[in-house]
Amino acid sequence: MSDQLLERGGQLTLDIDPDRLLRRVADLARIGADPVTGGITREGFSTADREARAYLMAQARAAGLAPSVDAAGNIVVRAPGCGEAGDRQVLMMGSHLDTVVNGGRLDGAYGVLAALEVLQTLAHAGLDTVCEPVAVAFANEEGALFPQPFWGSMAVAGRLASLPREPTDHHGRPLREALQLAGGDLDALGSACWQAGSIAAYLELHVEQGPVLERSGSRIGVVEAITGRTVLTLEVRGTAGHSGTSPMEGRSDAMAAAARVVLAAENLAADRQLCRVATVGRLDPHPNTPNTIAGTVRLTVDLRDTDVWRMAGAEQVLRRMLRQIERSTGTEIEVVAETRSDPVSADLRLRAEIERSADGLGLAHEVLPSGAGHDAQVVADLAPIGMIFVPSLGGISHVPEEDSRPEDLVAGARVLLRTAVRVARGTVL
Amino acid sequence: MSDQLLERGGQLTLDIDPDRLLRRVADLARIGADPVTGGITREGFSTADREARAYLMAQARAAGLAPSVDAAGNIVVRAPGCGEAGDRQVLMMGSHLDTVVNGGRLDGAYGVLAALEVLQTLAHAGLDTVCEPVAVAFANEEGALFPQPFWGSMAVAGRLASLPREPTDHHGRPLREALQLAGGDLDALGSACWQAGSIAAYLELHVEQGPVLERSGSRIGVVEAITGRTVLTLEVRGTAGHSGTSPMEGRSDAMAAAARVVLAAENLAADRQLCRVATVGRLDPHPNTPNTIAGTVRLTVDLRDTDVWRMAGAEQVLRRMLRQIERSTGTEIEVVAETRSDPVSADLRLRAEIERSADGLGLAHEVLPSGAGHDAQVVADLAPIGMIFVPSLGGISHVPEEDSRPEDLVAGARVLLRTAVRVARGTVL
Repeated sequence: MSDQLLERGGQLTLDIDPDRLLRRVADLARIGADPVTGGITREGFSTADREARAYLMAQARAAGLAPSVDAAGNIVVRAPGCGEAGDRQVLMMGSHLDTVVNGGRLDGAYGVLAALEVLQTLAHAGLDTVCEPVAVAFANEEGALFPQPFWGSMAVAGRLASLPREPTDHHGRPLREALQLAGGDLDALGSACWQAGSIAAYLELHVEQGPVLERSGSRIGVVEAITGRTVLTLEVRGTAGHSGTSPMEGRSDAMAAAARVVLAAENLAADRQLCRVATVGRLDPHPNTPNTIAGTVRLTVDLRDTDVWRMAGAEQVLRRMLRQIERSTGTEIEVVAETRSDPVSADLRLRAEIERSADGLGLAHEVLPSGAGHDAQVVADLAPIGMIFVPSLGGISHVPEEDSRPEDLVAGARVLLRTAVRVARGTVL
Repeated sequence: MSDQLLERGGQLTLDIDPDRLLRRVADLARIGADPVTGGITREGFSTADREARAYLMAQARAAGLAPSVDAAGNIVVRAPGCGEAGDRQVLMMGSHLDTVVNGGRLDGAYGVLAALEVLQTLAHAGLDTVCEPVAVAFANEEGALFPQPFWGSMAVAGRLASLPREPTDHHGRPLREALQLAGGDLDALGSACWQAGSIAAYLELHVEQGPVLERSGSRIGVVEAITGRTVLTLEVRGTAGHSGTSPMEGRSDAMAAAARVVLAAENLAADRQLCRVATVGRLDPHPNTPNTIAGTVRLTVDLRDTDVWRMAGAEQVLRRMLRQIERSTGTEIEVVAETRSDPVSADLRLRAEIERSADGLGLAHEVLPSGAGHDAQVVADLAPIGMIFVPSLGGISHVPEEDSRPEDLVAGARVLLRTAVRVARGTVL
């Protein structure tokens, strides 16, 4: 296909099939759907997840493409014959098919189906490219059933080498069997790893899952970075006592101390702007009865930012505030668990190309961080990444009501196509 | 028995039997005790409670006293032959035998056994009195299994007239049968009611359940009033959202609002001193996961004071603060349930007599409110009440570690005896 066909008067004539894309999104939304809430439950490696995987592979085959499953259970879809060429770098596009419990129909699934749509469009156009376009559905991104989130992308990045022998789900059932049913092989995980340099770029299209684009009216979000996340699990220890017989003076009330921690966390982000967001989402008092002063409270503080130094600074300030709260409330506050993931920046050239694609389509766009985690942050170990967001209605996600306008879903896939064409033809990187 | 025998050189020679009292306290502590924690579980009308009741009645009979069970399951112990006299007012002394789940050995039980000890001492001394001393074990004060706390004292005060036909326990099992096993009769509850004027006074001896006496070093507490209690159950409604993708601006975080409510409640009592104590002991966030902004939080605010107008004022200020918190956090806060009990004052003459008794025994004493509820507050409908406290080790109660020093248990019973003698002889009221 000639450049004249691709770009006529500045317009790309090559286009995805919007109806096919939306039909596939609707088809997939029926798999694992709750008939009452409409919520979707396709925990990674569950029966519903396997059904969704089978659907994707059937659609790929029907489109004349060649899907395969790697040892980690990732579905890799290539144009026929391309797998044998072997010496070209690939342009990887994708996301995941699995969901949280009672989640929405777009998170992950939209990005996978859009990647398939773009691959199918490119393959059928017979476009001559420097890089080979590949669509991927990463396995178990959410970790809803098997608590190993980013499972598939971590295998691709070679980060599952130090795996405990037998990972299990929340009920103690082995991953080995579930993985086998999905076409994977726990003993051959190493074979799922991609070599350094083999991936020219990774592009992931996703719903924003937040309210930024909807509020500003932008049609396309250009992700500058995926925020890092620090989760501190705190235990506040006071002294339980009778709420009627214990004078206020001399109390050591774990609930009152925990309330100060909640507000200190909020203050870090909202007023002092030491990090982008800070949230206490979980709080468990004990004994949790109306007429007893709380003896202990466990709570989690979730801090996120796109800058690793700001995250460290915010955590340091928080820890100092915890010491002050201990002193003023007569409690002890211990950090009993801490998990950290570093922020990951999107490639500047890919960002610029996404903006150029949106401009070419006349779509208002803006640069924003991704507050949620994505497979892209793991693939970033291996390759430059770019992420495209479309607006989420009401800014909500991981709930049955998660949704986006059809025209935005189509627009996002068109931006992915345009960006993919230029990246695959070697004009970007 | 002459006055000369009773008071020789200002000393009462009549005395309780300290060893017998402490032995009975130890005996009763074995009934319903957990072999591991030592905690006592004798929920009202449970098997363990019935065993404790049988123990009390056997001890009373062995002491030559006449125990009987009224229709509500209260055990009423009289000196032999006294029940027939009928026309004397009674001096009622008592408390309850039932406990919370995994509670302590003294709450309630100590007051009942001390009342038995005093009655036995008076009966054996053959003291000629204007009022007939009576010991009572009120049924189901805690309401741990059958959620009708103060059951027995409410029947005595005639407050169970509007009873739902068939009260049940937390598992739906009918009270009717449990009451029958305890010797009561649901269909004859009215017969448990005492007539106005029939009770000259009610005296209740109890462990403090708080830290006031231990901190000040007083041996005896003279209760000025039983605090009233207002419990507001609040529902804070915000908007659930992803903790990473929702900017701080525009959040409506139910947890952050609930934290402000916790501190507003504390502030009412601790800083502004609008009421004696204020506590948030229970707080249930939803969905309560680390990476989701809380959509709703339910919590209880427990306000107590000995003055009904101060309680009303504190509640009014709290409700005004809730409106401010709603505005500043973008949430809605609804009072979804409210329960109130009015404060009850102790009789000034009985208070003075308790102080005089402590003075006579050389026991340091102080006046304090009761922060916890007691059967006395219900009997106050019918008769003047007086309450005597002894120190609680560490100020704790309703836990296996609840305890008091043996010498304080003996001292409390001696104060009860002295006070009872003068009240029964008609020199106080």
